[in-house]
Amino acid sequence: MELYYWPMIQGRGEFVRLVLEEAGVSYVDVARTKRGMAAMSPFLDGKKRGALPFAAPFIRVGTTIVSQTANIVAFLAERHGLVPRTPALRAEALQIQLTIADLVGEAHDTHHPLGGDLYYEDQKKEAKRRAKSFVSERMPKYLGWLEDILSRNTASRKQWLVGARRSYVDLSAFQVVEGLRYAFPHAMERRAPRLPLLMALRDRVAERPRIAAYLRSERRIPFNQMGIFRHYPELDAKPQRRRRAR
Amino acid sequence: MELYYWPMIQGRGEFVRLVLEEAGVSYVDVARTKRGMAAMSPFLDGKKRGALPFAAPFIRVGTTIVSQTANIVAFLAERHGLVPRTPALRAEALQIQLTIADLVGEAHDTHHPLGGDLYYEDQKKEAKRRAKSFVSERMPKYLGWLEDILSRNTASRKQWLVGARRSYVDLSAFQVVEGLRYAFPHAMERRAPRLPLLMALRDRVAERPRIAAYLRSERRIPFNQMGIFRHYPELDAKPQRRRRAR
Repeated sequence: MELYYWPMIQGRGEFVRLVLEEAGVSYVDVARTKRGMAAMSPFLDGKKRGALPFAAPFIRVGTTIVSQTANIVAFLAERHGLVPRTPALRAEALQIQLTIADLVGEAHDTHHPLGGDLYYEDQKKEAKRRAKSFVSERMPKYLGWLEDILSRNTASRKQWLVGARRSYVDLSAFQVVEGLRYAFPHAMERRAPRLPLLMALRDRVAERPRIAAYLRSERRIPFNQMGIFRHYPELDAKPQRRRRAR
Repeated sequence: MELYYWPMIQGRGEFVRLVLEEAGVSYVDVARTKRGMAAMSPFLDGKKRGALPFAAPFIRVGTTIVSQTANIVAFLAERHGLVPRTPALRAEALQIQLTIADLVGEAHDTHHPLGGDLYYEDQKKEAKRRAKSFVSERMPKYLGWLEDILSRNTASRKQWLVGARRSYVDLSAFQVVEGLRYAFPHAMERRAPRLPLLMALRDRVAERPRIAAYLRSERRIPFNQMGIFRHYPELDAKPQRRRRAR
């Protein structure tokens, strides 16, 4: 099992790493070996057989190549028992994964609202505007939706998002909460009290033995300012401690 | 089978409609009946059992609710024989569908680069900049990638994107080509000669009996300026007819 992704960031590859780690799969994070990023090019240039990836991350299992983050994790989850087997629950898992992907995309756009071909410094004004609406409206809407899903899932006693047991989407929910806590610590601190089930899920995932070992290891790249989740203090307003009169 | 989506646009719901039409499934496009858009609310408000959709489009089949466009079409395709059965080819189909979804998202962002909460008129300058890089770089890259996939798929004699027969992603490729031809007619006219297999695929889909009947029917909403694909002449530069010296 080989994973191909940029070696210096968690980025979208991290959702794949978490599934591989939880499943206990032995894998090579290829661009972090001495083969480096150059090892990705033959796949992206169409010089390998199998499916043609448009971009990283992608995985190779034998002669099968799979790309697109949500597709990779769903594919791995089916192979390794990290998703229920019925079509309805599999579809429910994927709709949650794809909605988390939308949230991740919107989190990225807070620091690059004009697009990835300009520096952050060249779009700071627009970033501030976008971050404000993200933090006050979009982020609470997405996270509240995850909280609602947990509160409806009596099959797992509100412990997991889909079905009775943990699935790959629980790992992704953990990752998006971690990313948002890194990027918007103040906003997340304010929001957490309204998300008790989601925060408990986050802890439950972090405490799983294989995930806990991974998070302590050097395989877990720290969050940084090159990734999808970035911490710019000017985009994360400090909490207002004083009470407002109604 | 019920489809829930905004009644006045093709939008993301159109990818679902095309699958339902090609599969010959009898369905109700609920918001276009007298029940109207209000029929969507109980689902989005969590008042129905089953999976909780974050947004439209979503479908209801019995008690199963499925949302997220790529997830809906993959789910329907499995039920109705519109995708190969092997995990590798199913994953290849979904990676293409998700990449088409990314292209659709970037096409949308050309007219709303600052976000959907501002009018187009309030972001015209940024739209012009974004549209220029979309038309000159991103759109050719995505469409060239689809052309490459077709040229590699000898199993279908370069006629279809995945496996030997037509699948749901061929319908989506048709739709994105149609949308881009509506939004950027000049740019697409210039680009078409380099995309012979993709343009032939577009025609092949349009000529399928059920799709042809659908496109002629009133069920097919015309493209318009409220949808994802919008035609603003200022975002689609006219072709330069004169030859340039090398």
